Amino acid sequence: MSDTSSGVVDLLGALAYAELTGFLRLAEDAATLAPTLTDRAELSDLAAVEHRHFRLLRDRLVELGADPEEAMAPFVDAFDSWHALTRPSDWLEALVKAYVGTGIAMDFYREAARRVGPDIAGLVEEALADEGRSEFAVERVRAALEREPKAAGRLALWSRRLVGEALSQAHRVAAARPALAALLVEADEGEDLPAVGRLFARLTEQHAKRMSALGLSASS
Amino acid sequence: MSDTSSGVVDLLGALAYAELTGFLRLAEDAATLAPTLTDRAELSDLAAVEHRHFRLLRDRLVELGADPEEAMAPFVDAFDSWHALTRPSDWLEALVKAYVGTGIAMDFYREAARRVGPDIAGLVEEALADEGRSEFAVERVRAALEREPKAAGRLALWSRRLVGEALSQAHRVAAARPALAALLVEADEGEDLPAVGRLFARLTEQHAKRMSALGLSASS
Repeated sequence: MSDTSSGVVDLLGALAYAELTGFLRLAEDAATLAPTLTDRAELSDLAAVEHRHFRLLRDRLVELGADPEEAMAPFVDAFDSWHALTRPSDWLEALVKAYVGTGIAMDFYREAARRVGPDIAGLVEEALADEGRSEFAVERVRAALEREPKAAGRLALWSRRLVGEALSQAHRVAAARPALAALLVEADEGEDLPAVGRLFARLTEQHAKRMSALGLSASS
Repeated sequence: MSDTSSGVVDLLGALAYAELTGFLRLAEDAATLAPTLTDRAELSDLAAVEHRHFRLLRDRLVELGADPEEAMAPFVDAFDSWHALTRPSDWLEALVKAYVGTGIAMDFYREAARRVGPDIAGLVEEALADEGRSEFAVERVRAALEREPKAAGRLALWSRRLVGEALSQAHRVAAARPALAALLVEADEGEDLPAVGRLFARLTEQHAKRMSALGLSASS
């Protein structure tokens, strides 16, 4: 039970820092990469959604008697490293990151939330609500690929890098936070495939769906 | 009447861009200068308030039949220049900017809103609502000055630069946008001091109040 509790605080702390830093990075991309004022404003809208999700998580951590700063601290290095290693160099890369990179990160939180109580699982779902982010990115990337089909190779490569770096940081976090890792790979009753194998099968499937939505190949 | 209307669109466009870019700059300061995760989170909260104010203004521009991007465009260069010329080099400078720099900018909008209808004036007041920004900055700057009194000279100099650059950009905007300038300096009935003189007297008085709240001298 104390393992579950520390797993829950880890889950909410990780997700809170992910939303806080996601908010700040989207704001940076809006400020530095958006091609028009309208795009800048719309990406700012999406950043503000992440901030709202951050507040939900911070408030719940406080309600649970946890200190939000302490709950977030174990995840700062891994998430900051991920962002530093996947800094978009243009608007299209920023859009793909907002969809593919954020997408796989969210899949991890959803997986962990499968093994917490309905109250926390509901909060996690609320914090993961898409609220237009995917549509925003998919529409713009598809339109850009219609104008310039040869950008597809570069963006597919970029997507692989986003996912590779995400898996690498997830591995680092799982090693350092066993209670959180247990939420991800605990065996369910009556399932016989190894839990890690099932987890990666689901993550890969979701990633392939996103690549296909962008008009990119996951394997090319 | 058409002068007033273009003045109103200018006022809302200028304020909308100020809030949008204020949002993005506060987010940048939160990401790069906040000394703790809690400070980062709290400055992010203030940034999100600016984003909410931006949305109010953008929505009203759309209701008025104006294109928000076109309404904001005339102010981009002046506001971006102001931010580029007043980039804080540390957390204390960021806090002073959030209070003193944003304060004088808001005084300009309040002055212009004195001469528009109550409907627009009410919207401007809502968009200028402080929502904790001043208290956040004042508390932290005062505490820092208690620990390190000799920082006062540097921060007083920084404040003068913030205000000097703000007046310089305001002058540039007023020259380029006569309908907006007219809202600022139109003579009121029964007043005999020149309007520009009264405007600067009020701006100076408000600035001195802010400096005093920080524990800094406006003239030292």
